Amino acid sequence: MSITLTDLNSLGRDDFVTALGNIFEHSPWIAEQVALLRPFAGINPLFAAMKAAVERAPSELRLALIKAHPDLADKTQRAAGLTADSDAEQNSVGLDRLSDAEYDAFERVNNAYRSKFGFPYIVCVRRHTKDSILRDFERRLPHDVAAEMRRSIEEICRIAALRLDQLVTAEDRLPVHGRLSTHVLDTHSGKPAAGIAVELIELADLGASRVVARAVTNADGRTDQPLIGGRPVPIGKYELSFSVGEYFAARQVPLSDPPFLDRIPLRFAVSEPEGHLHVPLLVTPWSYATYRGS
Amino acid sequence: MSITLTDLNSLGRDDFVTALGNIFEHSPWIAEQVALLRPFAGINPLFAAMKAAVERAPSELRLALIKAHPDLADKTQRAAGLTADSDAEQNSVGLDRLSDAEYDAFERVNNAYRSKFGFPYIVCVRRHTKDSILRDFERRLPHDVAAEMRRSIEEICRIAALRLDQLVTAEDRLPVHGRLSTHVLDTHSGKPAAGIAVELIELADLGASRVVARAVTNADGRTDQPLIGGRPVPIGKYELSFSVGEYFAARQVPLSDPPFLDRIPLRFAVSEPEGHLHVPLLVTPWSYATYRGS
Amino acid sequence: MSITLTDLNSLGRDDFVTALGNIFEHSPWIAEQVALLRPFAGINPLFAAMKAAVERAPSELRLALIKAHPDLADKTQRAAGLTADSDAEQNSVGLDRLSDAEYDAFERVNNAYRSKFGFPYIVCVRRHTKDSILRDFERRLPHDVAAEMRRSIEEICRIAALRLDQLVTAEDRLPVHGRLSTHVLDTHSGKPAAGIAVELIELADLGASRVVARAVTNADGRTDQPLIGGRPVPIGKYELSFSVGEYFAARQVPLSDPPFLDRIPLRFAVSEPEGHLHVPLLVTPWSYATYRGS
Amino acid sequence: MSITLTDLNSLGRDDFVTALGNIFEHSPWIAEQVALLRPFAGINPLFAAMKAAVERAPSELRLALIKAHPDLADKTQRAAGLTADSDAEQNSVGLDRLSDAEYDAFERVNNAYRSKFGFPYIVCVRRHTKDSILRDFERRLPHDVAAEMRRSIEEICRIAALRLDQLVTAEDRLPVHGRLSTHVLDTHSGKPAAGIAVELIELADLGASRVVARAVTNADGRTDQPLIGGRPVPIGKYELSFSVGEYFAARQVPLSDPPFLDRIPLRFAVSEPEGHLHVPLLVTPWSYATYRGS
Repeated sequence: MSITLTDLNSLGRDDFVTALGNIFEHSPWIAEQVALLRPFAGINPLFAAMKAAVERAPSELRLALIKAHPDLADKTQRAAGLTADSDAEQNSVGLDRLSDAEYDAFERVNNAYRSKFGFPYIVCVRRHTKDSILRDFERRLPHDVAAEMRRSIEEICRIAALRLDQLVTAEDRLPVHGRLSTHVLDTHSGKPAAGIAVELIELADLGASRVVARAVTNADGRTDQPLIGGRPVPIGKYELSFSVGEYFAARQVPLSDPPFLDRIPLRFAVSEPEGHLHVPLLVTPWSYATYRGS
Repeated sequence: MSITLTDLNSLGRDDFVTALGNIFEHSPWIAEQVALLRPFAGINPLFAAMKAAVERAPSELRLALIKAHPDLADKTQRAAGLTADSDAEQNSVGLDRLSDAEYDAFERVNNAYRSKFGFPYIVCVRRHTKDSILRDFERRLPHDVAAEMRRSIEEICRIAALRLDQLVTAEDRLPVHGRLSTHVLDTHSGKPAAGIAVELIELADLGASRVVARAVTNADGRTDQPLIGGRPVPIGKYELSFSVGEYFAARQVPLSDPPFLDRIPLRFAVSEPEGHLHVPLLVTPWSYATYRGS
Repeated sequence: MSITLTDLNSLGRDDFVTALGNIFEHSPWIAEQVALLRPFAGINPLFAAMKAAVERAPSELRLALIKAHPDLADKTQRAAGLTADSDAEQNSVGLDRLSDAEYDAFERVNNAYRSKFGFPYIVCVRRHTKDSILRDFERRLPHDVAAEMRRSIEEICRIAALRLDQLVTAEDRLPVHGRLSTHVLDTHSGKPAAGIAVELIELADLGASRVVARAVTNADGRTDQPLIGGRPVPIGKYELSFSVGEYFAARQVPLSDPPFLDRIPLRFAVSEPEGHLHVPLLVTPWSYATYRGS
Repeated sequence: MSITLTDLNSLGRDDFVTALGNIFEHSPWIAEQVALLRPFAGINPLFAAMKAAVERAPSELRLALIKAHPDLADKTQRAAGLTADSDAEQNSVGLDRLSDAEYDAFERVNNAYRSKFGFPYIVCVRRHTKDSILRDFERRLPHDVAAEMRRSIEEICRIAALRLDQLVTAEDRLPVHGRLSTHVLDTHSGKPAAGIAVELIELADLGASRVVARAVTNADGRTDQPLIGGRPVPIGKYELSFSVGEYFAARQVPLSDPPFLDRIPLRFAVSEPEGHLHVPLLVTPWSYATYRGS
């Protein structure tokens, strides 16, 4: 379900508020305030206006906005029903299928945070993996209330920007998308390596690692689509795995038995979800190199 | 327990046969034949003489030599007692602590092989990992009897060379030792990387991977001892893991958060147990390279 | 001076022949033959028709086409006047400013070739450097007449394709353009290296090397324009020179004195004038790497 | 002509002073002072004693020591005769075969320095190239007299250490020797590259570059001898040139025509004459890498 900016600009006030009422969780008053500022020339000015409305709101209203958010991975709240957006966001990072140990970890987080600050721990989960959420929590828990109110509003604005980006079609784009790409160059033959099976694995300290993308390199040594694109690249640890043994064997290159290199793992971390991270592989049957490209 | 070549040369015939009687499993006749050829100028001529005795023996005697060997990982035989050498050899590759699935795999191997050829499956286990033994078996099972008799004698000679190397001290060495080494060069500072924690992990398709060596790089970026040395490097798959995140953090190098590179895994296979394999790492916080060196 | 394909399609026959009369040197009969085949849907079908006219022409006519070409770097002929196209082509590769030694070399080539085959040595000079022309000559001189007639026609068609490409504007392009590009990645900081001065030098075995392009890398570590583009990349030897010493010094990176790396030369050869050759540099103050990319 | 430390220890006092009288240019008083301190347990204690004698000498004597040295590259003084040591030292860096432009440059240096400080410009030329001497001069000229007296004494001690190292044989060595080595690894075949022709060229800003070492890599991909060893590696700029085109062609590796890589130049600077600098090459027909190793 999406709507064009043009249509948004021409909706009646109530329909506009209905359309954008949950961009900020359970807080239609923000849409109400910006309805009067229409028409918007782009999605960026629209979002800027909504953000400004939040920032100039009185402290009590900002606190209410924070408290309108659910806990992360809370079974009781999930059973009682989340907003569709919150539900999808939490599912995207796997919070709906936690192991018991993970549930316990998140429950500790929520309780510790709520008992210190009096409001729920909020983070824009689409920019994170489970591990990075828990690390984020540990860093934020020592803060004071004022700092955490500011930080919560920041995270809420990030959540809102992603919701708005998914809902509204416009000529301009919000800068909420990152990209993770790769490229395999066969320096044995001096050509791009075509036909190499690539897996992207999200590594987990807690719980199980999981394959998040699979692809095969094309004639240019790249994947047809970025491994992750059109959304933030979640902060976390990853492994790219390249099946180079099969590739060189298929090309009749003399190899040792077993081949010196077979499946090459490249492990790296993502720290900027909205950036473009390029992780290439330069490879022969006897050597390889990688670097953070752009 | 070791003996010098000089002493061996001067022992009485019976003592000599006793000393070398189990170099070839339960087959003192080989030591008896070479006792007359003393003195030996080195351990290499001694071993060559023993090998020649095996090769010129009549077929029945060679078959008896083969049949004198125990099955691999056979619980019943182990309970009944192996020679001390066989026991230590099988333990070295972990055949004394197999999972149930592994026991089953080895039992299948032994039975299939014995029922086809009429003699036990023999391999020089000190040159192997469990995975490579099972792969070796699969390649050898389709052979005919003559080929497998030749191959069994080859493996028996390899076992004997390693036993002789462990038992006898001489000025020359048998060419039965390989070496696996590494080196970390920090191309960010242009210096050897000192103080990097390194782990060598033997990877297993079946059963669990296990750490087989741990070290910290010295001022020259090397480990004080080779990761594996003074013995064959078992054929198999390995991972070297380098804790570079801690290293660069300790040097106050600006890093992303989390660091782009933290623990770098290099995965490779060993195919020549008696060779010298050097697997170096050239590394900055943003790039790395490796190659098969020598 | 250029003309659109649309205009060419609608010109009167004589004007069409005038426009394309020198695409093949002094040989308007080729344009005459294809005039009747208009309209052409693109420049590729137009060129294919002209090439087909040449190929189906009787042997005498093809020989006359070959003989219509001037010698390379012949002072007498140049003094008497070449076609504007021939003049510009020869100048592009520096045949108008040869040293005495080079003039002698080319005169020997021309004379040896003409006295063996009875027609001038023809090569598409825009695809070459002086050195590669002389090497091409040496390889062709041992051929027989039939082979050299075929080869001369090939080269004439390459010349014609480049002339047509320069003259005619169409929606499609003839595949006559190559590209040489570079990219500098600073693996010390993990970012593209901006502000690096780059020189491309054409190396000469005979005569002097010369700088053929200068650029400074932009924020993406690339040059704003390809080092060579929009034309064939001449077959020959090149050096790319990167001023990395200044770059790292300006960034306050600790360096040795003098800096270990200052101006890095990468030497390579171009063999496919119509290909895309990418020669990147991965660099720290203490290490670098390059590879043939694409 | 060399003498053992044992013999030096047992010589009569006058013979000892004669033997070591020119270790410090025209200054036998230093040998006289240390003669009484014999026997020396090693060449290092001997040199330390001589250096201490210089350092505790009154200022006038140190100035006289400085003034006992000739100008660099001074034709008049050379015609009148230098000590054999000074002559050999100046020749080692090519000061006996300067171009006119170089003579002029050195004459300017000497005159400017002498007219400011009242004593000759002294530098340990065996640690330098002509270019680095001129740069050293430029850096020192702005100093005050006290700083330059100290610095001159330092350089005189370096000269003395090298003279002593050449003259005296002992079990210990003075730390005056550096080393420059290389290694070629063929990452196309995964083996050391044997049979690669290597040239080491000393690059000159002023005057001509010159080949200072030639070698061919052995089975281990190294040169049998270090490219420079057993002496200081002169501060300066160098190029290592590797003939990899011939190497890969001889191995029947498919190459482009002309080969993408033929003679690979690695350019680098030496800054620590007494250090061990290792400059390896990792190479395929389509890629290469180098780094400052150790």
